[in-house]
Amino acid sequence: MSEEFVPQWYPLLIIISGPAGAGKDSLVRRMKEMGYPFHFVVTATDRPPRPGEVHGVDYFFIPTEEFLRMEREGELLEHAIVYGQHKGVPKQQVREAMAAGKDVVMRVDVQGAATIRRIAPEAVLIFLTASMKELEARLQRRGTDPPEQIALRLSKAREEMAQIDMFDYVVVNREGELDRAVHQVVAIIEAEHCRVHPRIVRL
Amino acid sequence: MSEEFVPQWYPLLIIISGPAGAGKDSLVRRMKEMGYPFHFVVTATDRPPRPGEVHGVDYFFIPTEEFLRMEREGELLEHAIVYGQHKGVPKQQVREAMAAGKDVVMRVDVQGAATIRRIAPEAVLIFLTASMKELEARLQRRGTDPPEQIALRLSKAREEMAQIDMFDYVVVNREGELDRAVHQVVAIIEAEHCRVHPRIVRL
Repeated sequence: MSEEFVPQWYPLLIIISGPAGAGKDSLVRRMKEMGYPFHFVVTATDRPPRPGEVHGVDYFFIPTEEFLRMEREGELLEHAIVYGQHKGVPKQQVREAMAAGKDVVMRVDVQGAATIRRIAPEAVLIFLTASMKELEARLQRRGTDPPEQIALRLSKAREEMAQIDMFDYVVVNREGELDRAVHQVVAIIEAEHCRVHPRIVRL
Repeated sequence: MSEEFVPQWYPLLIIISGPAGAGKDSLVRRMKEMGYPFHFVVTATDRPPRPGEVHGVDYFFIPTEEFLRMEREGELLEHAIVYGQHKGVPKQQVREAMAAGKDVVMRVDVQGAATIRRIAPEAVLIFLTASMKELEARLQRRGTDPPEQIALRLSKAREEMAQIDMFDYVVVNREGELDRAVHQVVAIIEAEHCRVHPRIVRL
């Protein structure tokens, strides 16, 4: 009876969510750079790429028609229309990574996180956030949105922050402390693997 | 409304438990060496010191009569008789550390952990373990117990391992990988501080 009290390894489904400007993209990019052995889900969207974004790396940039087909055929784990643009996560990609024993890290907006919570209640939901002041500063610095869009995103952010209760963890991405936020996310993943009753996701 | 979605800091009560030979003492000693800013509870016991153990550091070694007085006056958070020897944790010490905003790390046997779970259900219970083979090897190497005592401890260890369900986390202290176990415990503490619904201990 040598190791039977060691819990079996189960791959986790880690959801990084939070308001626009919280730094979800930067955080996930940094996690990739640091070489963590997670599977990072590539989201599909029909919005145009921002400067520097690469197809198949940052997003799958697909035409709206293709998006609607995947949605119709149930090929998306979650999908939402955000500011009139489609976003969604291909199901098969997540199943395959977990079947290969890999933790899956997924970046979705708060609306998407709510869907995941419903479909996969055992997912680990992390709310990445920052102060309203920092959110605003980041959206302005990004320079991709007109002022009305920024105002819309900030008002949305306030609503999203009110939904924090459905999340398991909250990580504050303070200005200039991205690595600290990454470190906390990694600690959460490590801790979740130590749970006596692991969160086994079935999709 | 700058930071109201950042959960307030609450000190945690971290219980390191597990069977004899799992390495509870070594783990806590290593955590101290590494300078983590936790308050490490000093347990009171009426057993004689083992070679190298220091009063007030490893344990408070107190006479049985004094122990019984503390017990009678409700000055112990938990107390148990293990192999005919008293062990217990002075309550006041824990309250003071938490009031000062410090996480409290406490090493107790499995019987003690069950008591803590009852008194402070919000405590974070970590089961430190190893394979039966390693447990046996460590007890023999320790060289402080006669063979009958080792057999007794191992049989007890089997019973204790069956109680793993009441724990939140399990950390396997593999031979030669103490720092890895410490790292996991620290990750658990860090993750617990990120919980949206923190475990607030009231004693």
